[in-house]
Amino acid sequence: MVPVVLGIDIGGTNTVYGLIGEEGTIYHSAQILTHGDKNVTHLLNRLEKRVNNQLNNDDDYQLTGIGIGAPNGNHHSGFIQDPPNLKWGNVDIVTLLEDTFSCDVKLTNDANAAAIGEKQFGIAKKMNDFVLITLGTGLGSGIYSGGEIIYGHDSMAGEMGHISIDLNGRLCTCGLKGCLEMYVSKKGVEQTVSQFQESHPNDEFLKTLDPSNIDGRIIDQAVDNQIHTAIQIYEYTADKLAAGLALAAIILSPEAFIFYGGYSQAGDRLLEPTRKALDNYLMDNLKGKIKILQSGLPPEQAGILGAASLIWKL
Amino acid sequence: MVPVVLGIDIGGTNTVYGLIGEEGTIYHSAQILTHGDKNVTHLLNRLEKRVNNQLNNDDDYQLTGIGIGAPNGNHHSGFIQDPPNLKWGNVDIVTLLEDTFSCDVKLTNDANAAAIGEKQFGIAKKMNDFVLITLGTGLGSGIYSGGEIIYGHDSMAGEMGHISIDLNGRLCTCGLKGCLEMYVSKKGVEQTVSQFQESHPNDEFLKTLDPSNIDGRIIDQAVDNQIHTAIQIYEYTADKLAAGLALAAIILSPEAFIFYGGYSQAGDRLLEPTRKALDNYLMDNLKGKIKILQSGLPPEQAGILGAASLIWKL
Repeated sequence: MVPVVLGIDIGGTNTVYGLIGEEGTIYHSAQILTHGDKNVTHLLNRLEKRVNNQLNNDDDYQLTGIGIGAPNGNHHSGFIQDPPNLKWGNVDIVTLLEDTFSCDVKLTNDANAAAIGEKQFGIAKKMNDFVLITLGTGLGSGIYSGGEIIYGHDSMAGEMGHISIDLNGRLCTCGLKGCLEMYVSKKGVEQTVSQFQESHPNDEFLKTLDPSNIDGRIIDQAVDNQIHTAIQIYEYTADKLAAGLALAAIILSPEAFIFYGGYSQAGDRLLEPTRKALDNYLMDNLKGKIKILQSGLPPEQAGILGAASLIWKL
Repeated sequence: MVPVVLGIDIGGTNTVYGLIGEEGTIYHSAQILTHGDKNVTHLLNRLEKRVNNQLNNDDDYQLTGIGIGAPNGNHHSGFIQDPPNLKWGNVDIVTLLEDTFSCDVKLTNDANAAAIGEKQFGIAKKMNDFVLITLGTGLGSGIYSGGEIIYGHDSMAGEMGHISIDLNGRLCTCGLKGCLEMYVSKKGVEQTVSQFQESHPNDEFLKTLDPSNIDGRIIDQAVDNQIHTAIQIYEYTADKLAAGLALAAIILSPEAFIFYGGYSQAGDRLLEPTRKALDNYLMDNLKGKIKILQSGLPPEQAGILGAASLIWKL
């Protein structure tokens, strides 16, 4: 019997899960739609069925625990606390899964799970001080300091998507103005495209874009084809990102910022102008010292690996 | 023989030192001028003479170690790294004092020392997640997360004086714009007074102030006397402070911000409008949750107590 942990990474659109061995071997993984507009049991019932099928299909696996990364997942309370993209309210997901699977269950937020995955199995293995940033619909962050995750007093630290880089800036869904994720994320880039369309009404590339739903890969491809406006969109985004990273850098002095998630697939198209812009926002003693890196793990792996590590490494 | 640690808190103007017992008893303390414009040995020679006199005067004391808090004091390297207010360049103060006193010597920055003092002996005894903010000529911060000081990769984390609350704001001596300490500190309030003098040329209270050197106690007294302009100066300062605290709060989610140092003597005159303003800059899940407190230790004690704790508590 191979002991495995079920790692679950709950996202706004998709939920990834995997059966993971102690050294990080992913024996099986898959993804299903989250359906955040339905009751949480709708997701959990589908998960249960699929995981039990998988476990029963192969007698070699023994489930020893479950680790979950989820938006607004509270490590201390075990509750998912009313995440903006999921219509679940407050959900005691740890108890629900303990009852279903009769094993140890641990929860943290999705960005912390990705940070733990990167620390255990990715490019942050030898780093004690780094910030993992998830770029997707929004922007999240998981922070390591001195080799430990920063949870904060209420376990909800690391909400870098909501630090303001401009107190008169774009209005965020949270009610604040100028939040970093209103510039750097899927919804941020969509607003930037909309803004560019107003200021450049005759731009051929911009005319092809629907600002209510931008697939980052379309901008990536345009940058690769040297489309000037696409390069400008990422330069604008990189400048805002640099301003936000600087605020965190001055407080935390990390070795690196590591980018993970769908919109981070832009890679150096976005990160290279960010490296150039960052020094504009740092004091001399920090200039040129902080690495800006893309995740070292394949897309969708850091989340489930980190979630599984909540069990394996405790 | 009573074992004592020499705690030293080096400031831009004054240096406080004390002989401190294991439980935080201050057997002797005094302060001398730092003379940051002269060589560091000028300070160390005077310190050595005074401390040795004190030790020799009373055979009951045995010096077991020295802890130092200093601007830009690097915990890892043992160097004071070119602090802006002291013309010392880079100083290997740990080695210098080890050679002089033949005992164990530890260094950290001044704000971390105050934070450690507050954690060991002040109102943060039961807190694991808090930010101590020193208000003096500038603004410094020492951060606890999960019961440990955040040092960061280069040991220079916690430079909250230089987070920007307005990228088009006041130019800081560090070269950046809108740094928090350009609004909230002695030099920040001086700029605010100067700005108010320009916009209110006939204000009687403002006419009495010399914006090149403002003693905070004069504004405190005016607030106590209900002078409207003085109240406005602190409301303006509190609003900027709240914007800066919010940035740190969103990243760190602390239980409290604790204020220490000369300009923190304003107490609730400054902190009460800050409490009111803070929620304007926080997401709903943080509103009303973060305490804003004045240090629980007498002026000048947290620094030497924290410095001494570097030896006692390791």
